[in-house]
Amino acid sequence: MIILGIDPGYAITGFGIIKKEDQQNILLECGVITTKKEDNKYDRIAETVNDLLEIIKTYKPDHIAIEEVFFSKNVKTAIQVAESRGAIIYQINQLKIPLFEYKPNQVKINISGYGSANKSQIQKLTQLFLNLKEIPKPDDAADALAIAICHANHLKNNNQLLI
Amino acid sequence: MIILGIDPGYAITGFGIIKKEDQQNILLECGVITTKKEDNKYDRIAETVNDLLEIIKTYKPDHIAIEEVFFSKNVKTAIQVAESRGAIIYQINQLKIPLFEYKPNQVKINISGYGSANKSQIQKLTQLFLNLKEIPKPDDAADALAIAICHANHLKNNNQLLI
Repeated sequence: MIILGIDPGYAITGFGIIKKEDQQNILLECGVITTKKEDNKYDRIAETVNDLLEIIKTYKPDHIAIEEVFFSKNVKTAIQVAESRGAIIYQINQLKIPLFEYKPNQVKINISGYGSANKSQIQKLTQLFLNLKEIPKPDDAADALAIAICHANHLKNNNQLLI
Repeated sequence: MIILGIDPGYAITGFGIIKKEDQQNILLECGVITTKKEDNKYDRIAETVNDLLEIIKTYKPDHIAIEEVFFSKNVKTAIQVAESRGAIIYQINQLKIPLFEYKPNQVKINISGYGSANKSQIQKLTQLFLNLKEIPKPDDAADALAIAICHANHLKNNNQLLI
């Protein structure tokens, strides 16, 4: 089973694709989609969505897992990310690919066992879970992989789709 | 010139279509798209966007004006509206229809001349501007018409596209 994890953003969106097997998860690809500050909002959202659609076309994920919007103090940023995220989830829904949402805390608890794990601990565990020589870079790509692993673990632990 | 005004929402989205002529604006249609509480988020966003796409197909607006997300105290609601709005603006951008955004206050000032006008004053002025016998109903449809009129006035006052 192929799982695409998405860490949605406006300026930068992380993606990570893993193959879930019985004994372990295998990294297929990860990276980030960045949009240019000088472009207008519509073009930035379109670039994010259209690049993700290309990735989906290439890897044909069976499931997609996406992080919920983090309610930061910066409401403007949260609204921008939510707009980009809305365009993403609409397109995924149109493609009829099962989509699962996880809160940042759910990802942390799933990966590390506790909700107060810090970013570098999660990244280290992501590296271990995927049996990689190094921590995936950049941060947003590692975050997206953590989301994909969280979903893979969730399926394994529940033996069914419970979310 | 045909202008579609959109008052974006998650549970209810208002739309209003006007024909801008030299001397006045004419109402073509207005209404609301409502989504069911019992449906999941993806289906609710999809229903909103797909219904709007049908309206766009029917009326072929030259310009579309949409209200910016209002930062209410309810951050969850603001995020939901932003996600729905993101899906809408992505699709409009894909159709290459010029899209213009207005803040709630910009609409009020444009229609009434001052930013502290209340809802019923704006609705009354919307009725007058469109030469209607009654105030358009429901409220979200009237709000969407106010956004369309705001854009028509904006074009008239500037004699060009300045926003």
